[in-house]
Amino acid sequence: MSTSYAPPVQRLVAELSKLPGVGNRTAQRLAFHILRASAEDAASLAEAIREVKEKIGLCELCFNLTDEARCRICQDPRREQELICVVEEPSDVIPMERTHEYHGVYHVLGGALSPIDGIDPDDLKIAELLARVVSAQLSVREVVLATNPTTTGEATALHIAEELRGRAPDVKVTRLASGLPVGSDLEYADEVTLGKAFAGRRAV
Amino acid sequence: MSTSYAPPVQRLVAELSKLPGVGNRTAQRLAFHILRASAEDAASLAEAIREVKEKIGLCELCFNLTDEARCRICQDPRREQELICVVEEPSDVIPMERTHEYHGVYHVLGGALSPIDGIDPDDLKIAELLARVVSAQLSVREVVLATNPTTTGEATALHIAEELRGRAPDVKVTRLASGLPVGSDLEYADEVTLGKAFAGRRAV
Repeated sequence: MSTSYAPPVQRLVAELSKLPGVGNRTAQRLAFHILRASAEDAASLAEAIREVKEKIGLCELCFNLTDEARCRICQDPRREQELICVVEEPSDVIPMERTHEYHGVYHVLGGALSPIDGIDPDDLKIAELLARVVSAQLSVREVVLATNPTTTGEATALHIAEELRGRAPDVKVTRLASGLPVGSDLEYADEVTLGKAFAGRRAV
Repeated sequence: MSTSYAPPVQRLVAELSKLPGVGNRTAQRLAFHILRASAEDAASLAEAIREVKEKIGLCELCFNLTDEARCRICQDPRREQELICVVEEPSDVIPMERTHEYHGVYHVLGGALSPIDGIDPDDLKIAELLARVVSAQLSVREVVLATNPTTTGEATALHIAEELRGRAPDVKVTRLASGLPVGSDLEYADEVTLGKAFAGRRAV
């Protein structure tokens, strides 16, 4: 932003630039939109940002985002408490919910193991997951490891699978299938995905 | 956003979705970023939004954005007051400034003439421009019409040029050149741009 702009505008552009995927040009465009918007709209946005930081915390059971002690999914009596889907981030719950195929509960780790970034099992909600499964062992039927199909996500899934095998051998531990995305083209599939798709091939 | 999310999160996503170029997915991504950010960073963003609406108004002379009575450009004694560049929006000042070729002052119209959208001369700062040029007629040397090279921008430029010819015949009125963008390829130029580039050809 040109230094000929007033400090409050420069400040807003700087703050907006910190958002993911928002470069300087986009931040300027957003700032000019906010400047053109009504005072009420701008106040609503500012208030929504404040409110979300003030009211939203982590569910005491699954560590998903919530504005109460327990999240809506954990509180929902229609959800199967015997089925736990383990994901890395609260944002990973959304795509799972969008499938409308999953009716169990969640456990949000808060990230994935990555020794290179200094993220050890203690930095994630792994102990809490083990405690949750062990303490309720009679009722937990299956743990679905839905960490990302990345190096760190796979390492996290493997680590949790091993821990669970040791402490709760009766609980079934599964992993989301890797393979070709629906609607994709073999021609453009990367070799790792195609390899996984081949290894995981099923009888028709 | 899944209804399983807490209302403050849904509210933030809804508010962020109102920003230009921000769809539901992007709004979710931004919301999760804000949730992960430190309380200070989120508060800074909210505060920057509030502050910009509270402190930023229009320059009394050129109608550019400012946090004082007159904008920094109008206040700058090094800028040539005899040269006025007329633009549609405050955001159009930035690209002009970025050229480092322009050392005059600005006049921000606040839009372009568009009868179909009900935007008449009275809705823009055209009378203010005329008054500014006429009252200072002896000192204003040139008015550069830098409205966008669009139908509405051209109509606005024509209207202002006519008004100026009638009231301040001694003031030179110019328009930014239309033509091929630097670094572009003739093959991909649209016919209107190429036609303008041909019409405006210059001796080498």
